[in-house]
Amino acid sequence: MRLAVLGVGLIGGSIGLAARRRLDAEVTGFDPDPATLDRALEAEALDRSAASATEASSGAELIFCAAPVGALPGLAREALAAAGPDAVVTDVGSVKREIVAELDADERFIGGHPLAGAETSGVENARADLFEGARWYLTPTARSGGLQYDRLQRAIADIGARPQAIDADTHDRLMATVSHLPHVLANVLVAQAAREVAGEDAVLPEVGPSLRDTARVAGANPAIWTDIFAANSEAVADSIDAVVERLQDAAGRLRAGDRARVAEWHAAAGEDRRRLLEADLAGGPLHELRLRVPNQPGIVAELALALGRAGVNIEDMALSPTADLRFGAISVWVAGPEQAERAAERIRELGHAVSVVDSEG
Amino acid sequence: MRLAVLGVGLIGGSIGLAARRRLDAEVTGFDPDPATLDRALEAEALDRSAASATEASSGAELIFCAAPVGALPGLAREALAAAGPDAVVTDVGSVKREIVAELDADERFIGGHPLAGAETSGVENARADLFEGARWYLTPTARSGGLQYDRLQRAIADIGARPQAIDADTHDRLMATVSHLPHVLANVLVAQAAREVAGEDAVLPEVGPSLRDTARVAGANPAIWTDIFAANSEAVADSIDAVVERLQDAAGRLRAGDRARVAEWHAAAGEDRRRLLEADLAGGPLHELRLRVPNQPGIVAELALALGRAGVNIEDMALSPTADLRFGAISVWVAGPEQAERAAERIRELGHAVSVVDSEG
Repeated sequence: MRLAVLGVGLIGGSIGLAARRRLDAEVTGFDPDPATLDRALEAEALDRSAASATEASSGAELIFCAAPVGALPGLAREALAAAGPDAVVTDVGSVKREIVAELDADERFIGGHPLAGAETSGVENARADLFEGARWYLTPTARSGGLQYDRLQRAIADIGARPQAIDADTHDRLMATVSHLPHVLANVLVAQAAREVAGEDAVLPEVGPSLRDTARVAGANPAIWTDIFAANSEAVADSIDAVVERLQDAAGRLRAGDRARVAEWHAAAGEDRRRLLEADLAGGPLHELRLRVPNQPGIVAELALALGRAGVNIEDMALSPTADLRFGAISVWVAGPEQAERAAERIRELGHAVSVVDSEG
Repeated sequence: MRLAVLGVGLIGGSIGLAARRRLDAEVTGFDPDPATLDRALEAEALDRSAASATEASSGAELIFCAAPVGALPGLAREALAAAGPDAVVTDVGSVKREIVAELDADERFIGGHPLAGAETSGVENARADLFEGARWYLTPTARSGGLQYDRLQRAIADIGARPQAIDADTHDRLMATVSHLPHVLANVLVAQAAREVAGEDAVLPEVGPSLRDTARVAGANPAIWTDIFAANSEAVADSIDAVVERLQDAAGRLRAGDRARVAEWHAAAGEDRRRLLEADLAGGPLHELRLRVPNQPGIVAELALALGRAGVNIEDMALSPTADLRFGAISVWVAGPEQAERAAERIRELGHAVSVVDSEG
């Protein structure tokens, strides 16, 4: 199969690597940055480089557009103009409605969005197994070519991902809530906290772990996130509206002074959290182990090593230093009561006091 | 000094331990649960136990009420009734306006709130150094006795904490935003996400790390949190109102389709985050290292161990498994560019690809 990759960063480079190894494809790549293109060749993500998107696309059967969200429609249009009548052109953007609406007149375009790679960037981090087991959304419409869809979804499955067709609107609404909304909440929370703290004589040094967790992504990657917010503005704004309604309901329950209704609201959130986060975990519900250790190099290692030796898999971990930075609070999440017990035992053997909090909390 | 501790869980027990060791105090304890009282004696957190709050308080110079928020006013009232005219009675509740308003007629009561101990519970986890370096808010009013305030703040400083006077209203407003609001946002986010996902054919297994981080505390510890929300309902509701305004502003910017205003909003949040979270970190601004490793026991250990050996202190860490649970994304935060570089080098030596994201990111 002849394949083109337009934009050879982490995602494009990984597509190239995976396609060459697993599909035995012949991969031509283009990137507006010549240095990136050279690095992609060096990394063996490509068989050859092209001087333009048009050159890369002409003669290719399957074309992946892997540029930033804002550049995708133009790039896909150029690919469609250069590609043959049976080719399929797809993209990897995290927002789908806009590009699908723009290019839907052409049966050769099918939108896509692999859920992988958020943790790193750059072709130097590309790997053939980046998409192994990852969900890869595809957004065909009534106009999409059947031949094209079949070829695309087979290629994606063959590089190890799990293709799933989804309506572009549904995709964007889903992403607005599970991916974009947390960033919005992080942004407003830190803005609000910064204003509150500014009234005090000093920065609150004892910012709690819950604020730290929520605030972690506030203001992250401005270029990428401004693009995403702009491209999915309607769905994100709708999801903000919905969350505003929920907040107003919560404020109402608090002001009414009705403990039972506050308790009910809080318990329902616990239920929702479990349903969302734990359904995919093997081994049973998450258990949290909380402990307090000296805030020194090597302590986390000792802990993780002891758990690893005991065959306990750490599903998640959060550290927060105490005020004086001499101690750290560590929460470790493991799946199932059996692992939780084993983990607690090992931690106690290391001389740390530990509490096990099951997610029923 | 003769000291009484009413309620001998983690906080009360740690006060007892610290006071005995550092103030050379004689500590009498009471707890409604006889087994807890026995464990406190065993842990040497007390010199002796009393059969009632009244018995423990009579003759004591300094009385700490360390019960759940809802029980504090009654307990403090009983202590004030039994204590001598020069005694000082304080509490450790995380909400202050209500109790201070109720007991302010008595110059011997001064509210307090140590920011420590959230990560564990139970007298078996009590330790003499729990408050070392921790902020300990005190909420004196115009009626509070000067003698009492002086004795209280000195005792608190002597057990290693950093006392700071703050108006009770200000305290509750501050806590509403930096501590209680993140829990509210977590609750509404998971409720919203659960509703969105329920419309799909299956639970979204690929919940992003940002949702995981924000949702972590959703529905946590229902008994404690219902108490806190109830006791601080007005300030929390006000803080919800303020955040609703910010959300409506964000939705407005998104709907207006004005990229520059969205970018400005997002960048300001990044600034606020830095100001809030990084001011207290030695060694410079936080750098995030992102990598992807096999999701197996021992991997986190290997990583943390290598960093520990290299003298790199992990300030924070977040793990999230990929969809197939075969790989995990790990973010590690370290302070300052020098440690970040050293950490990245070690991680590459372990054979993992890593990206360094400085917080300007």
